[in-house]
Amino acid sequence: MVLDVFNQTEGKPLLIQPKSRLVMIGDSITDCGRAKPIGEGRGEALGKGYVSLVDALLGTVYPGHEIRVTNMGTGGNTVRNLKERWQTDVIDLKPDWLSIMIGINDVWRQYDLPTYSEKHVRIEEYESTLRELVGQTQPLVKGLVLMTPFYIEPNRDDAMRAAMDRYGQVVKKLAEETGAVFIDTQKAFDDVLPHYYPATLAWDRVHPNMTGHMVLARAFLSGVGFGWNG
Amino acid sequence: MVLDVFNQTEGKPLLIQPKSRLVMIGDSITDCGRAKPIGEGRGEALGKGYVSLVDALLGTVYPGHEIRVTNMGTGGNTVRNLKERWQTDVIDLKPDWLSIMIGINDVWRQYDLPTYSEKHVRIEEYESTLRELVGQTQPLVKGLVLMTPFYIEPNRDDAMRAAMDRYGQVVKKLAEETGAVFIDTQKAFDDVLPHYYPATLAWDRVHPNMTGHMVLARAFLSGVGFGWNG
Amino acid sequence: MVLDVFNQTEGKPLLIQPKSRLVMIGDSITDCGRAKPIGEGRGEALGKGYVSLVDALLGTVYPGHEIRVTNMGTGGNTVRNLKERWQTDVIDLKPDWLSIMIGINDVWRQYDLPTYSEKHVRIEEYESTLRELVGQTQPLVKGLVLMTPFYIEPNRDDAMRAAMDRYGQVVKKLAEETGAVFIDTQKAFDDVLPHYYPATLAWDRVHPNMTGHMVLARAFLSGVGFGWNG
Amino acid sequence: MVLDVFNQTEGKPLLIQPKSRLVMIGDSITDCGRAKPIGEGRGEALGKGYVSLVDALLGTVYPGHEIRVTNMGTGGNTVRNLKERWQTDVIDLKPDWLSIMIGINDVWRQYDLPTYSEKHVRIEEYESTLRELVGQTQPLVKGLVLMTPFYIEPNRDDAMRAAMDRYGQVVKKLAEETGAVFIDTQKAFDDVLPHYYPATLAWDRVHPNMTGHMVLARAFLSGVGFGWNG
Amino acid sequence: MVLDVFNQTEGKPLLIQPKSRLVMIGDSITDCGRAKPIGEGRGEALGKGYVSLVDALLGTVYPGHEIRVTNMGTGGNTVRNLKERWQTDVIDLKPDWLSIMIGINDVWRQYDLPTYSEKHVRIEEYESTLRELVGQTQPLVKGLVLMTPFYIEPNRDDAMRAAMDRYGQVVKKLAEETGAVFIDTQKAFDDVLPHYYPATLAWDRVHPNMTGHMVLARAFLSGVGFGWNG
Amino acid sequence: MVLDVFNQTEGKPLLIQPKSRLVMIGDSITDCGRAKPIGEGRGEALGKGYVSLVDALLGTVYPGHEIRVTNMGTGGNTVRNLKERWQTDVIDLKPDWLSIMIGINDVWRQYDLPTYSEKHVRIEEYESTLRELVGQTQPLVKGLVLMTPFYIEPNRDDAMRAAMDRYGQVVKKLAEETGAVFIDTQKAFDDVLPHYYPATLAWDRVHPNMTGHMVLARAFLSGVGFGWNG
Amino acid sequence: MVLDVFNQTEGKPLLIQPKSRLVMIGDSITDCGRAKPIGEGRGEALGKGYVSLVDALLGTVYPGHEIRVTNMGTGGNTVRNLKERWQTDVIDLKPDWLSIMIGINDVWRQYDLPTYSEKHVRIEEYESTLRELVGQTQPLVKGLVLMTPFYIEPNRDDAMRAAMDRYGQVVKKLAEETGAVFIDTQKAFDDVLPHYYPATLAWDRVHPNMTGHMVLARAFLSGVGFGWNG
Amino acid sequence: MVLDVFNQTEGKPLLIQPKSRLVMIGDSITDCGRAKPIGEGRGEALGKGYVSLVDALLGTVYPGHEIRVTNMGTGGNTVRNLKERWQTDVIDLKPDWLSIMIGINDVWRQYDLPTYSEKHVRIEEYESTLRELVGQTQPLVKGLVLMTPFYIEPNRDDAMRAAMDRYGQVVKKLAEETGAVFIDTQKAFDDVLPHYYPATLAWDRVHPNMTGHMVLARAFLSGVGFGWNG
Repeated sequence: MVLDVFNQTEGKPLLIQPKSRLVMIGDSITDCGRAKPIGEGRGEALGKGYVSLVDALLGTVYPGHEIRVTNMGTGGNTVRNLKERWQTDVIDLKPDWLSIMIGINDVWRQYDLPTYSEKHVRIEEYESTLRELVGQTQPLVKGLVLMTPFYIEPNRDDAMRAAMDRYGQVVKKLAEETGAVFIDTQKAFDDVLPHYYPATLAWDRVHPNMTGHMVLARAFLSGVGFGWNG
Repeated sequence: MVLDVFNQTEGKPLLIQPKSRLVMIGDSITDCGRAKPIGEGRGEALGKGYVSLVDALLGTVYPGHEIRVTNMGTGGNTVRNLKERWQTDVIDLKPDWLSIMIGINDVWRQYDLPTYSEKHVRIEEYESTLRELVGQTQPLVKGLVLMTPFYIEPNRDDAMRAAMDRYGQVVKKLAEETGAVFIDTQKAFDDVLPHYYPATLAWDRVHPNMTGHMVLARAFLSGVGFGWNG
Repeated sequence: MVLDVFNQTEGKPLLIQPKSRLVMIGDSITDCGRAKPIGEGRGEALGKGYVSLVDALLGTVYPGHEIRVTNMGTGGNTVRNLKERWQTDVIDLKPDWLSIMIGINDVWRQYDLPTYSEKHVRIEEYESTLRELVGQTQPLVKGLVLMTPFYIEPNRDDAMRAAMDRYGQVVKKLAEETGAVFIDTQKAFDDVLPHYYPATLAWDRVHPNMTGHMVLARAFLSGVGFGWNG
Repeated sequence: MVLDVFNQTEGKPLLIQPKSRLVMIGDSITDCGRAKPIGEGRGEALGKGYVSLVDALLGTVYPGHEIRVTNMGTGGNTVRNLKERWQTDVIDLKPDWLSIMIGINDVWRQYDLPTYSEKHVRIEEYESTLRELVGQTQPLVKGLVLMTPFYIEPNRDDAMRAAMDRYGQVVKKLAEETGAVFIDTQKAFDDVLPHYYPATLAWDRVHPNMTGHMVLARAFLSGVGFGWNG
Repeated sequence: MVLDVFNQTEGKPLLIQPKSRLVMIGDSITDCGRAKPIGEGRGEALGKGYVSLVDALLGTVYPGHEIRVTNMGTGGNTVRNLKERWQTDVIDLKPDWLSIMIGINDVWRQYDLPTYSEKHVRIEEYESTLRELVGQTQPLVKGLVLMTPFYIEPNRDDAMRAAMDRYGQVVKKLAEETGAVFIDTQKAFDDVLPHYYPATLAWDRVHPNMTGHMVLARAFLSGVGFGWNG
Repeated sequence: MVLDVFNQTEGKPLLIQPKSRLVMIGDSITDCGRAKPIGEGRGEALGKGYVSLVDALLGTVYPGHEIRVTNMGTGGNTVRNLKERWQTDVIDLKPDWLSIMIGINDVWRQYDLPTYSEKHVRIEEYESTLRELVGQTQPLVKGLVLMTPFYIEPNRDDAMRAAMDRYGQVVKKLAEETGAVFIDTQKAFDDVLPHYYPATLAWDRVHPNMTGHMVLARAFLSGVGFGWNG
Repeated sequence: MVLDVFNQTEGKPLLIQPKSRLVMIGDSITDCGRAKPIGEGRGEALGKGYVSLVDALLGTVYPGHEIRVTNMGTGGNTVRNLKERWQTDVIDLKPDWLSIMIGINDVWRQYDLPTYSEKHVRIEEYESTLRELVGQTQPLVKGLVLMTPFYIEPNRDDAMRAAMDRYGQVVKKLAEETGAVFIDTQKAFDDVLPHYYPATLAWDRVHPNMTGHMVLARAFLSGVGFGWNG
Repeated sequence: MVLDVFNQTEGKPLLIQPKSRLVMIGDSITDCGRAKPIGEGRGEALGKGYVSLVDALLGTVYPGHEIRVTNMGTGGNTVRNLKERWQTDVIDLKPDWLSIMIGINDVWRQYDLPTYSEKHVRIEEYESTLRELVGQTQPLVKGLVLMTPFYIEPNRDDAMRAAMDRYGQVVKKLAEETGAVFIDTQKAFDDVLPHYYPATLAWDRVHPNMTGHMVLARAFLSGVGFGWNG
């Protein structure tokens, strides 16, 4: 079920069933100041990023679905960290749907802290770990969404951009293997980048502003059958 | 041009022209912590409410339009206050499009501070002042959007809800007189209220949470021809 | 001893004996920022709500009684939480008189967090738990006061108001079974509600302002034989 | 109308008419952190002292009276300061009823800062200034309440207590001359002092805790015909 | 060695030997914000009260003595608390000289928290505990200074003042039994009280200002043979 | 009246008359966080330095003198700054006694900011300005005290120490010319310096700790006839 | 005097004469939290950027030169802002040497706020304004240093990098016209960029970390004849 | 390899090999607010002192070396403290190069806290402990740098300066014994002190300002073969 997210026909039903619990896990892009230890509740418990936008758009257009969104992102995480907290932070929460967006820090540390090799997650470890987590979890959920990492840099020859693309290919491969919903967040940013100075969308080309988070929310929602008019 | 905002056909062009400046004025619902004295710039300059959602959705779906959104809401304002600052805060900014959402405090003060009569803006003053502002400004702009005030209370027999509905009728009448785009925010909330405990959308039934602001953003955008897929 | 609290004859003696220790337990309405772990001492140790008003009124009119008031309210509590801390927070303190006001969160969570079913305390659990606590404690104290939960919403057809009334009926039944002093806080609010916009008494219709807390203090005190002139 | 405040018969009507504006002026005992420049509005605008207790008790027992209470106390004030701000802080507010409690700092500075003679307001100046303010204002209001200053010191031979009693006699004389309601706050404290260590009611024997403020509120209210049961 | 502290002849040698360690223990009057867990070092490690004044006067007049002053006061302590921490806070520090000023809270709690009987240290317990501590420690030190508790209230008929005088008599008796240096702090305050409003020296008649702490420092120093000119 | 301050005979009367106002002016050593604009009142209004120690020692030993001490020191001041504020900060306060300690910054800026010549007050300007201020003020007061500047550096060959000594000689000369009380603060520090590492008394060899301020207070007091036993 | 800054021969004398005042003006890169209104003095008065490094390196290697460095950078400035404050912030300070680094914001606003055209300083205005300032000031100083703006982006095809290069060419042209010392800061960054992920040197590719500021300090110093060994 | 650090010939290769990890350990001069527990990472993780200047200068001139600098200084440490944490803070980090600058507190405590003998580290203990640490570590690293302690006091007859010189001699002896790079920081300061008031370089003559830290960084770098032009 690798979907071309921007050609969805309005009117198709939302893939996420009414009364589902949707857990979204990831790094700081997902976290955005969510409540700890469990990212749900009133106020800013879902953080200030794409997760809260997803929740608000679902709640506005599909209020009768009563979808329970839980944000389990943690700043600075790599896939190695996800594995460490997978039991308590994913399995124990019994999600109906699960989304995963990981990999930015796996790549970034190789560039911003090149001398700290103990912090680098090479692509082989990234792929094997992510495959292990997906394989362990798919039998337990109704739906799985795999989102690529991204780098808001239009120059595809940039070393870190090129690396991020390779990690994104791993995510695509895993989605194809497992039939998970695939969200190409890099493509979503590439579509708008011709119109923006990159730092406008994210001061460090990684942590998006509100528009950047909306790009992510829109990509995710389009992938799960969301329509503006319900 | 009173539009039934939820029956827009996707594919219609956005009413707001590329490179337009859109000024949005109102009370605390609009303000939401915007930058002062002029609500624009980087960071949270647009505040944390529907204005920043409108900006983010326009910027995501119509990045090439380069619409410049300016938030001129001020907490606690009634239409009487708008009149005092109309020259500096609207006219001098030379907007291409202008949206106005005012009236909540005009009504609310009659209920939460009933003994402070000097703070009450009765419906006659509300109508005449708003008509004056609209009349003065319409010749100067390309588009005008009039949004009703609202009260997130499902019981239409509630005294304050009933009063708010009467003020909303004034807005509708003015939109019809002038051909402005009309946004019925009360109806937008009424559509979702069967599914929510009111305080979930707004702790005091007035100041919305993220979902409540998304309801407002969606109503506004649908009224100006926004489509999820551009 | 179910008393009609507002027809007390002035001059009747105060039910609470001199030198008694009065422990008042409940949720955030009782808590109001009390000292932890034991809510007594100088300064604002009794919190800023009805407990401190009860203490101040008893201390003003009956200074010779030297009643020791202890506030054991805890924000967010349901009757399920009271049971967990009953031994340390009630029994170990050896109260002479005990008042209990619980149930608001038991009901509220069903409305403001409808998808979080693990936080809902249904009426059967509410009744059985409260009966257990009362039964266990009554033999140990000289006097017991049972106060209903309340919702500052005048519309009795409102779903949450109707539910709160049903929980209040449970409290009344338990008071009748045990001969405890019964305080109908909902009725106390209903008596003043014709004169107030609900949010004036409590911004979220639950957490009262000073006037709302005085309504509670007056209801409690009238139930235990307090007279303005001693 | 010098009333023996504690022998009021319940059932007598409240002296303050419905829809009256009651302005209460004084020093830090009145102020207690009120809103500036005008002490009224939501939240803690009335401060945390006897004024807010008076407001809450009136609002609880006489909700239909809709009395508008305004706190105009200012910390550190003597009668000399009241004179300086009388036009803006009393006359311009057009009160229906006015209460004045002043004199504590007039006396206190003579004891705690004995070498700063420029800060001392001697009894002759106190009497003539207070008489001038009362004379100027009585024709403009429906009711006037004169409250004595006090010192929470049981030893009447204490030099500062004896001085405070002399200033209180001035207030009594002015109430008798003008027919104002007279509130003997010193007597109200003397009635409870046999049961309290003075610093329990007020750490410095001047600034009361909640119980001490309730003593003041009860003295005031009993003087204006308040009854616990309405 | 019960000395009449104010008739010391200048020129007598200081009783405290060069290079001595002087530990001063007590309650909040001694503590005054000292460093924890051990009250010594640079900055305000000795607190802001009489201990730092004693240190500064010794250091100014007897700089060659190199006396090491350690402040071990703890706010809120009674003699019961001293006993609990005696081993670690006195014995383990191996003082050459030790001063003790305790008893204010032992008495005060009986007056400011009369209903909290578990916090009251009656005179029998006070005497027996203090005798035990003194007896245990005297063999280990070169010099012992016993300071009375005090209450800055000139009226000797005041109940708390009278009680404090009785506790002070216990200290005097113990000094006579053991030959310790006796410091009558109550007398030191009584000597200056004819010239001060009590709250000028200590806002609550217990916690002194700088002048009040100088009264204590002067009483202590005069007792150990200090002379202004060395 | 150049006194050898450390050979005062105890028993001589205090030079400062009862009920005098003593104004002490200077730089940050005098200031020490005093109240602004006038350094007097309760709490720490006199700052935390030698002025408050002088006040506390006078108040302890001579409580009946009721001397009113006012601290007019201002951090960073040179004699040039004193001249600018002399009318408002000295003359207008009508002191009975006046002390002046100035000159440290006049010298210091020449050493710590050698390239900022506009901040340097050379010795000629220092002498002429100080003579002018003294000459203008002496006829208006009962007593004048001139205190030298100081530098807590034992090495008299140090350039800044040598300069400070020259400025101190100017003060001595002016005291001799005018008969003012002369306080040699440098000598007071020199007397204790053999026993201290300089930074112990003042981290930067200028701003003293409590012991260093006591050295100053003792020098001042000995110069005006203070005796420890009154 | 366009110097190839990295081929300086050690041993050449420093161009800046002893006892010179060096004023460095610019935008936030220069500012870095300097003291206002004049950026000089102790502590962090010179800010935390290249100016303080220049000062520290000059002070370490040439301590006898006693060069007075003044930082007049102001965050957000364009050349348009420099012109507004040139009289007070440059001319009035009478510098011996002046360095100017401006232009980053002139370019950046065209990219990060493309719709705010009133904030854009086009290259014609940049060149004419900078030429005017240089022409006006050169006759007044002994030495002038012109530093290019920079963008820490290795991709020369990036639109903003290309624009910055064009503005840098203007600076070079002006240096050639006037004989000012020319510092090519862009080249200095280009030399190290092959070894760094750009965001490591400056999170937004503009505001450098300590290493990035050292790159600037080294470029400046090499241009004025600084040698590591003096 | 005791080098005369200021006669290095430019062009000699840097002693520290590419991709080395350089751990720098010491007291507060090294610490300067570094990240805990490990002093490395982005932002101010290296502190604000000479370590970050060393890192910035290496990173500027030798960007291709990719040297990983780790700051392990801890405020207040003596050599005794280094020994306690040597395993975790040095050995476990597997440094390629190690620098040690310790001894200031070992000496200082003998002067600023002369009565606290338990805090004094005498020269015998200093030498034996430092020799033990060096001996244990030298076999494990590629390079070792020993830096003397220092005291920014030009008067060599000053007692603490003289003591510091003796401790510095111990460091020199150990460098000679082991062939470690020797850095005479005291000499580096002595070279610039003729031009500075000591407190300008370090307010307490110990903790340097930016210029003082640059003196240290330059001394260290010159010792390891650094050249300004690479």
